[in-house]
Amino acid sequence: MSRATRAPAGRGRRPGGPDTRGEILSSARESFASKGFEGTTIRAVAAAAGVDPALVHHYFGTKDDLFIAALELPFDPRELAPDILGGGLDGAGERLLTVFLTVWDDPDTRLPLAALLRAGATGEPAASLLRDGILRMVLAELAEVLDPAEAKVRGELVASQLLGLALARYLLALEPLASAPAEDLVTWMAPNLQRYISGDFL
Amino acid sequence: MSRATRAPAGRGRRPGGPDTRGEILSSARESFASKGFEGTTIRAVAAAAGVDPALVHHYFGTKDDLFIAALELPFDPRELAPDILGGGLDGAGERLLTVFLTVWDDPDTRLPLAALLRAGATGEPAASLLRDGILRMVLAELAEVLDPAEAKVRGELVASQLLGLALARYLLALEPLASAPAEDLVTWMAPNLQRYISGDFL
Repeated sequence: MSRATRAPAGRGRRPGGPDTRGEILSSARESFASKGFEGTTIRAVAAAAGVDPALVHHYFGTKDDLFIAALELPFDPRELAPDILGGGLDGAGERLLTVFLTVWDDPDTRLPLAALLRAGATGEPAASLLRDGILRMVLAELAEVLDPAEAKVRGELVASQLLGLALARYLLALEPLASAPAEDLVTWMAPNLQRYISGDFL
Repeated sequence: MSRATRAPAGRGRRPGGPDTRGEILSSARESFASKGFEGTTIRAVAAAAGVDPALVHHYFGTKDDLFIAALELPFDPRELAPDILGGGLDGAGERLLTVFLTVWDDPDTRLPLAALLRAGATGEPAASLLRDGILRMVLAELAEVLDPAEAKVRGELVASQLLGLALARYLLALEPLASAPAEDLVTWMAPNLQRYISGDFL
């Protein structure tokens, strides 16, 4: 018997009221922040919000969907892959970097990502949100188009460069990297990303 | 007239007693943490420790020397350059990565660096310790051997990759990157660093 079913009327399981969606989001944020991605379950988020797990699924879909909504990610990492990888591996480094810079150069879309990166650098449980949340979703897309035996290494090498770029350009504001136009960064860095994606080193 | 000179006897300027060195270090740590690198002066550290600035110079040398001592950096960034760059630019990417992995793979030497990276990612003033402290020292060495017009961009591109590697391998512990032997990382990543150091893209 679930906690929500046992809870007294008025404090327990509720129909979807006007702020139920907000309460679920708030419970989800609290759980992701304190327990990380792997430690968060739809069932526990529902219990903390005093609703049935089915209602969480109804409002938000899967745990990945809930994660994206709760962290207010400015994009769905699973929807980026067609733009970047749909045209094949040729030029994927440049397309990936262009999308990355578009998202990060806009202060509105940068904000939640910078918060996630700052928190993730401090260690667990926030590191789990970056690693098991957003990076896992992106790497899963990569595994669809790369040799499965190589996809994780290649994806993490790409991640290492992009995490470092975010840190250097946006959090540490190293000059001239911080003020360089996106086109310059693409010239400087895209070939390195392309090597990680399709280079002959594995 | 300096604050130390005006301070009353017993609370102000002191000779170098047994714990004077420790008090200067403690004042320096406090100042670097709260005011960043640029915001810290030898004079203010001396005043906070109740000693004459000359004593700080006597014990620690320059502000850079004091910074290295206060943060307990496991190496002097200014002494790495001969190993990495002394042999010329050929192979410098591999030598740099090998030194980097040697320092970071040892938990004892990793600890102060990981603390600095964690703090730096949270924003100012700690970001200043990474940017204006350690990275500036390393980049100054690079400027000695590279075209001065290119040294900053090349150095920051290298820094972006190494910061991202530290984040991915040691703080986020992305697998397989976190458990990969150093030799594998050199195979995977050194050519990318070498391109940043000497590639024809500027």
